[in-house]
Amino acid sequence: MSLSAYSKLENRFTRLGLLEETSGILHWDSAAIMPPGAALARGEQVAQLKALSHNLLANGETADLIAAALEQQDLNQWQKTNLELIRRKWLRATVIPEDLVIALSKACSASETVWRNARIAADFEMVRPYTETVLSLVREAGTAVAEKLDLSLYDALLDQFEPGARSQEIDPLFDDLTQWIPGFLDDVLTAQDRRPPIQMPEGPFAVATQRELAVTFMSALGFDFDYGRLDISLHPFCGGTPDDIRITTRYDENDFTSALMGVLHETGHAMYERGLPKDYRRQPVGAALGMSIHESQSLLVEMQVCRSREFLDYAAPLARASFNGTGTAWDVDNLYRLYTKVERGFIRVDADEVTYPAHVILRYQLEKALINDEMKLADLPAAWNQKMQTLLGITPPTDREGCLQDIHWFDGAWGYFPTYTLGAMTAAQIYRAAVQADPAISAGIPAGNFTPLMAWLRQNIHASGSLVPAAELLKQTTGQPLDPQVFKDHLKRRYLAD
Amino acid sequence: MSLSAYSKLENRFTRLGLLEETSGILHWDSAAIMPPGAALARGEQVAQLKALSHNLLANGETADLIAAALEQQDLNQWQKTNLELIRRKWLRATVIPEDLVIALSKACSASETVWRNARIAADFEMVRPYTETVLSLVREAGTAVAEKLDLSLYDALLDQFEPGARSQEIDPLFDDLTQWIPGFLDDVLTAQDRRPPIQMPEGPFAVATQRELAVTFMSALGFDFDYGRLDISLHPFCGGTPDDIRITTRYDENDFTSALMGVLHETGHAMYERGLPKDYRRQPVGAALGMSIHESQSLLVEMQVCRSREFLDYAAPLARASFNGTGTAWDVDNLYRLYTKVERGFIRVDADEVTYPAHVILRYQLEKALINDEMKLADLPAAWNQKMQTLLGITPPTDREGCLQDIHWFDGAWGYFPTYTLGAMTAAQIYRAAVQADPAISAGIPAGNFTPLMAWLRQNIHASGSLVPAAELLKQTTGQPLDPQVFKDHLKRRYLAD
Repeated sequence: MSLSAYSKLENRFTRLGLLEETSGILHWDSAAIMPPGAALARGEQVAQLKALSHNLLANGETADLIAAALEQQDLNQWQKTNLELIRRKWLRATVIPEDLVIALSKACSASETVWRNARIAADFEMVRPYTETVLSLVREAGTAVAEKLDLSLYDALLDQFEPGARSQEIDPLFDDLTQWIPGFLDDVLTAQDRRPPIQMPEGPFAVATQRELAVTFMSALGFDFDYGRLDISLHPFCGGTPDDIRITTRYDENDFTSALMGVLHETGHAMYERGLPKDYRRQPVGAALGMSIHESQSLLVEMQVCRSREFLDYAAPLARASFNGTGTAWDVDNLYRLYTKVERGFIRVDADEVTYPAHVILRYQLEKALINDEMKLADLPAAWNQKMQTLLGITPPTDREGCLQDIHWFDGAWGYFPTYTLGAMTAAQIYRAAVQADPAISAGIPAGNFTPLMAWLRQNIHASGSLVPAAELLKQTTGQPLDPQVFKDHLKRRYLAD
Repeated sequence: MSLSAYSKLENRFTRLGLLEETSGILHWDSAAIMPPGAALARGEQVAQLKALSHNLLANGETADLIAAALEQQDLNQWQKTNLELIRRKWLRATVIPEDLVIALSKACSASETVWRNARIAADFEMVRPYTETVLSLVREAGTAVAEKLDLSLYDALLDQFEPGARSQEIDPLFDDLTQWIPGFLDDVLTAQDRRPPIQMPEGPFAVATQRELAVTFMSALGFDFDYGRLDISLHPFCGGTPDDIRITTRYDENDFTSALMGVLHETGHAMYERGLPKDYRRQPVGAALGMSIHESQSLLVEMQVCRSREFLDYAAPLARASFNGTGTAWDVDNLYRLYTKVERGFIRVDADEVTYPAHVILRYQLEKALINDEMKLADLPAAWNQKMQTLLGITPPTDREGCLQDIHWFDGAWGYFPTYTLGAMTAAQIYRAAVQADPAISAGIPAGNFTPLMAWLRQNIHASGSLVPAAELLKQTTGQPLDPQVFKDHLKRRYLAD
């Protein structure tokens, strides 16, 4: 019996998925353990896998199979959605001319390299010409996609990270937060000043002990070390494959708190990947949704659960015992104040959950203006500093603490930033629905029992893969579209209630 | 300007080489650090890479390019040899029908799985039916190759591990050793009994310290950690890629000697891979020669150099200092006796260099008889035990210590075993030529200076890649064909001279 066009497409995407898994392992290896001299050869190995994937995806046979499969009447809902996602992947892979792909890749590589030095030198002008080229090619590629998918230019870029998201829908959400944050931040800082000062537990904290504690919490959250690892890398991430999930972190012997919370964040990502529907492994419909849902799963674990007073009731005594901690710095109250400390700062990756949205909104507004040619790249530093003053009341001393701090734009990732704050808002909304649906979820936390939480997340979020778009999934699980009020309520409860 | 057929072939083999490098990293990862639950998915990833490689190698375009390149008059000697090696690779890839490849792969997998239990149960009959199937399919595949390459059936199998080797040339070498070993072994054991008893240094030996010491010796031998790693795996090996060489070992806290010598052995393999000609990276002519030259490089480092009295003059004080060793067990004389201890034993992988050839010759004679249908598989256990008695004067208590001990035959690797002893003989002959050519080589060893040795090996062995066949390379570098007398002289000098 010959296979249907749809089945042949599935087979093709299984092969693509296997290539992606292979790349995933190579990528983890490069970041975590590869000897430095292997970098050049590794780059060639990865480029080769990319070329093979592109060829498998973009060739004419794929187009014919899609056309034939669209005629099939025997597909179930998962298969229909899979076919639509396959079609969009194929469209994106074929719409950008190959010479533009190559030019963009080269431009990004050059700009990123110069950016590393420009950031050290705090000299935006050093990298600007390179980033002009990147921006211009990103706009060219985005325009091709926008025309094909009938999207605005910015949405065409955004859509690759967050399928279905539209700036028209993001604008009012972010405008709401923009109005609200400055006043709320003042209130939070005032309330914080009234509380006892935060004490830092005194180190040193042996790396082996930090790791052991992290493994304890990961295991409690449901991370199965038969299907994953915890290692070290300069920039923590969650990589690998659904059957081989590889979390990384970095340890600071003088401060155990950041590695620990980083691991818990990545564990949220890992549990999502691990919970994806096995029946559609390696198919687009079985893959994770866009960045906002992915980030919602890490932020739900980190921000909603692990920075809560209830979690610290469970975790603080374990941490104190691990490190043989003595003194009031180890009190649950103090550790809670430490893990929910808020401050005005320049650096996004160091920001707390109250100020983080300001960092994102600033970038979102600036990148939209740049993409839409409403602003010149040369004006970026001044515009950045002005927005920083408006939103957080501070001005970066140099561009190193300003518009040069993130790699994204210099490396060609435009349209990515809003997903962080969409993820934070989504996390708050999903978590509220979860604890309302099953009282055992909040009851379990002080006891270190996360089984009810993870069971609910797996059933309601993870196991649906990409069957429905993020916005619809949110409506299904929480009964309403993304609502900034839920996020604001969470922040008010945590930072003002005392 | 359009590329010549030869250049197109080179490009194709660069792509094949990149896929092989990728497989090399995945293989290392599986053996060293992969979580167990990932095994199934990893198997699929590797199979996918294999299929891609096979398709790239065996398709019609390759055949056309080879035919066209054979007409080119502008190729230098490296390119001509490369083309011939490419042609042979292509022949091997196309001569075995695809359904036979699949049947063989399945049969090997089944036989290997049953063998693991049969070995534990010491029950050869348990696995025999599965191995009958493997043997029959190996013969079928071998026959196809033999006809195409005009070789005997056994040589067709041998040739895949050791290109150019012929059993007709191996037979007299091995017959010579077969006659010589039993009497020599008696003499060695008598001489050994006259020496002071061997003392084992007392542990425990911390793994971290063992590793540190291994790294010291690896570095002294020229292993560059910018281009490689040392890790742990159940079965030690040297894997990865020439720019990213990954050695593994396993540590025993009660005995530091075996991990250390294992690492030095693998370092010999590593230095060969690292010294291959960069200009022909990823081309067949730039790759390592067959197993006997590869094994000669590991055995040259381990057996010729690192188990010598001169090496221990350098290494023993370092080891003693690392482990804070006290007492006469740490004397150079004692450690030398320990590292050159000879005994009659059942297990090949535990054998010393005097008895090792007996283990290999036994297997070579038996596998040849089985492949040539001169013996039934059912008769293997009895034949094994009888040969063991003749060669080493001992009889295995069960088949676990007899014909079930090695994975090779059960996993489909027939024609592999002789390369071990060819490698040991080759090592002796190359090392003799090296120390004759440059007196600084032996002079450097007690001082821990291996630069002259490695410079000579790189220039005379490593850098020639596969430009000339193993037998010719041996003649070029040592002035004569493989001569068992050189190996016997080495053994006599080491084991009887006192």
